Amino acid sequence: MAETLGTSKAELVEQAQRRMREVIPDNTWTTRQKLALTCRILFDAGHDSGLAGQITARAEQPGTYWTQRLGLGFDEITEENLLLVDEDLRVLAGEGMANPANRFHSHVYRARPDVNCIIHTHPLHASALSMLETPLVVSHMDFTPLYEDCGFLPDWPGIPVGNEEGEIISAALGDKRALLLAHHGQLVATGSVEDSCVLAVLIERAARLQLLASAAGQIRPLPPELAREAHDWTSTPKRGQAAFAYYARRALRAGHGDALSG
Amino acid sequence: MAETLGTSKAELVEQAQRRMREVIPDNTWTTRQKLALTCRILFDAGHDSGLAGQITARAEQPGTYWTQRLGLGFDEITEENLLLVDEDLRVLAGEGMANPANRFHSHVYRARPDVNCIIHTHPLHASALSMLETPLVVSHMDFTPLYEDCGFLPDWPGIPVGNEEGEIISAALGDKRALLLAHHGQLVATGSVEDSCVLAVLIERAARLQLLASAAGQIRPLPPELAREAHDWTSTPKRGQAAFAYYARRALRAGHGDALSG
Amino acid sequence: MAETLGTSKAELVEQAQRRMREVIPDNTWTTRQKLALTCRILFDAGHDSGLAGQITARAEQPGTYWTQRLGLGFDEITEENLLLVDEDLRVLAGEGMANPANRFHSHVYRARPDVNCIIHTHPLHASALSMLETPLVVSHMDFTPLYEDCGFLPDWPGIPVGNEEGEIISAALGDKRALLLAHHGQLVATGSVEDSCVLAVLIERAARLQLLASAAGQIRPLPPELAREAHDWTSTPKRGQAAFAYYARRALRAGHGDALSG
Amino acid sequence: MAETLGTSKAELVEQAQRRMREVIPDNTWTTRQKLALTCRILFDAGHDSGLAGQITARAEQPGTYWTQRLGLGFDEITEENLLLVDEDLRVLAGEGMANPANRFHSHVYRARPDVNCIIHTHPLHASALSMLETPLVVSHMDFTPLYEDCGFLPDWPGIPVGNEEGEIISAALGDKRALLLAHHGQLVATGSVEDSCVLAVLIERAARLQLLASAAGQIRPLPPELAREAHDWTSTPKRGQAAFAYYARRALRAGHGDALSG
Repeated sequence: MAETLGTSKAELVEQAQRRMREVIPDNTWTTRQKLALTCRILFDAGHDSGLAGQITARAEQPGTYWTQRLGLGFDEITEENLLLVDEDLRVLAGEGMANPANRFHSHVYRARPDVNCIIHTHPLHASALSMLETPLVVSHMDFTPLYEDCGFLPDWPGIPVGNEEGEIISAALGDKRALLLAHHGQLVATGSVEDSCVLAVLIERAARLQLLASAAGQIRPLPPELAREAHDWTSTPKRGQAAFAYYARRALRAGHGDALSG
Repeated sequence: MAETLGTSKAELVEQAQRRMREVIPDNTWTTRQKLALTCRILFDAGHDSGLAGQITARAEQPGTYWTQRLGLGFDEITEENLLLVDEDLRVLAGEGMANPANRFHSHVYRARPDVNCIIHTHPLHASALSMLETPLVVSHMDFTPLYEDCGFLPDWPGIPVGNEEGEIISAALGDKRALLLAHHGQLVATGSVEDSCVLAVLIERAARLQLLASAAGQIRPLPPELAREAHDWTSTPKRGQAAFAYYARRALRAGHGDALSG
Repeated sequence: MAETLGTSKAELVEQAQRRMREVIPDNTWTTRQKLALTCRILFDAGHDSGLAGQITARAEQPGTYWTQRLGLGFDEITEENLLLVDEDLRVLAGEGMANPANRFHSHVYRARPDVNCIIHTHPLHASALSMLETPLVVSHMDFTPLYEDCGFLPDWPGIPVGNEEGEIISAALGDKRALLLAHHGQLVATGSVEDSCVLAVLIERAARLQLLASAAGQIRPLPPELAREAHDWTSTPKRGQAAFAYYARRALRAGHGDALSG
Repeated sequence: MAETLGTSKAELVEQAQRRMREVIPDNTWTTRQKLALTCRILFDAGHDSGLAGQITARAEQPGTYWTQRLGLGFDEITEENLLLVDEDLRVLAGEGMANPANRFHSHVYRARPDVNCIIHTHPLHASALSMLETPLVVSHMDFTPLYEDCGFLPDWPGIPVGNEEGEIISAALGDKRALLLAHHGQLVATGSVEDSCVLAVLIERAARLQLLASAAGQIRPLPPELAREAHDWTSTPKRGQAAFAYYARRALRAGHGDALSG
């Protein structure tokens, strides 16, 4: 009866990708809605550290960005209270001020035209790992979206308020999608809010598992060829859309409905 | 007054087993209901990892299975939105598509006619443990249902979408009820949804304790004879029924009532 | 203005104990109510492990005890569904059966006329610690109620259903109030439900801290004289009453109101 | 378009501090309200350890303090049930008695006229760390408010009920804002309830990260110059006000509204 138990893996992968493109719907939230949802998703995923961390997305006008108001926690961000700022962090729309540490976002956006959303947070486990001045180790299939795609900044340049830190962080990120910053936290920069959100959830979980495993023994590497294959298999836009949509539904069920206006 | 304080252990064990068969009722949920409850139980027990993981149970028609729809989290599965699929993962009833990684389930069901329910997940601690390429160690009475009953696949064969991975995983499982997969997660395969659910909860807790204990010192082995005796004492169908029924009531109290339709 | 900043510590301790006896009220719950509340308190404090664990208290008739029904979790115990059993575990009042592993309680009650309540559980951290075959280390002021008051059973005698295990566990407990059982869990046995509940909460927290600290470094001992002084300072009945009353109020606020009937 | 991408860091820091002073509002809660909110914030941040711990703030009359009633948990403190006590711990207003271990607060307040609020707790991770007789290590930007500002008392002087312990603890604190007490817990003493609350949250998180990182590897130090700069950048009154206000809103959303009267 079964017809595909002899089909090659290459063919099965191709079929699965095609089917996912057909079946998984695109999200219809606006950028601001996705940004507010991202704040709530990350809050529930352990990314809060008091008032630290900034999340931005490119707005329509070049050189402008949506970001949160300084003084609000991730669990308080709504599509309505987001600020529109320019590269100098001047507020173009909304009340209050942006986090002065947002400055390095401007530098990353300049260096990376492909990036549309940057998430910088100090989540619990990524922060603990960062105290060891050791890079993220991708040793589990689930984290292969970060395989050879997460840089490492081993030197902490001090409080990231200056333009110098913007240059340093941009250079450390290079052309990757993620960055672990020693004594500091994590940074994700991708082409969509969805991918940035999903990678940010992933990097914190990866750090948590790295700490757990390191405490108990010696972490073993993935075979590079298979890890690269898995990176590509798991990094399609449809995967990001589906995972983000799930996280968003979960956040909305968990009581974050006030993130959206209507 | 007391009459049994001199009774032999063998006699007491026999009496207790008999009494449990008399007193503990059988569950009356349908397969689909038990599967949906299992998804919720596992979600609350730390088995979620985004959209990873698949749960299946044999349906009435040979070569067909109930499984979840790709894109839904374990906390979203209901008896109504489960898919009926065949060995090629073609959807026979329900909307959407199955996870392409379900493929290896078909291989396990072929190799193991005694298996009626397979649970494959990437829970937090089993995943962390899997990064060490080290087998599960059963060093606590509670985990003796897994004693000499949990295999180990030390090599990660890459994303499990091909038929090759189905063969590899089936072979590694052998005739056991559970399997730890390096760099990947856990798999449980037993004759009932109840036993699979209860073992899946158990394997994640066992991994968690193994990590905690390994970080703090040197885990000591159980005496094999006593561990085997405990395996059999704790692995009766009535135990699985009672534990599953408790977990299900707990999930329903915790807000998962929407898993069931009526 | 201040009058006591030169008063001796001995005098201050005496004054404080007297004042606590005057000010802290006695609890008025019945034994069954305190037992049901204890189940809920321990559930919230991480003592659940599926259906493992038993809690008993002496009932009015000598050789009889209140305990939970097999098949119910700690979060399901109410003052109404407790069973009255005799030393043979025959049910004298209530429905269902007791956990056959309750048997060793009969042996402990026989050996220890001063004991009125026994709590035996497999909490997460005490269980993990027990896999190391290492005793509890009291290295923090909060845990001094257990200082030289927690025994250790280094050999696991197998499933505790026989009378042999009752003898072994009684002997290991000796005249102490607590016991850590290798590969198994913890046992507390004191003169009141309140003290047993509070010590059970404490032993699990002590195990958790021992694991955390051991993973990070070398635990240092307390000065024995000061630790003994603290043991007595913290082990007064009024302390147990006050702590239990607080835990009970907390459990009732957390949704466990159904534990009590009226 | 951008004008500040070449501005010096010193100038940007100055601008940011000025802008924060303009934009972030001052809190308007009373001392008692802030104290009650602090109890709830710390409860949710893992500072509860049964009935251990005391929180005080200077009241209007010199030599008098607000503190909690012995027997209540942090989650039960309201602005109405706080006690007004003098240096001898005599109750001037309110019902019940203060924790006799409050005594050392009197000594600290005498030694430190600049201190208006003391928080002493036994939080989970600070307590575990304290068992190692090792100082707090500040190795992450978020914890620089504690850099060279957290003392260490390596010897546990026994139960802190005597005046001797008051002298010892005062001396160990010196002119710093925080203190880790071996085998005991943490103490924070600053000029405002807000700063004490925020530092107390921070020290427990710092201890947690120190344990996590130490278990997994070797913690690396911060460059002292940059750490001192960050200490000052993050320790402004406006930062404390903003962070406290956020934590308070979060506590109120989490169900602690009963802490305030109206």
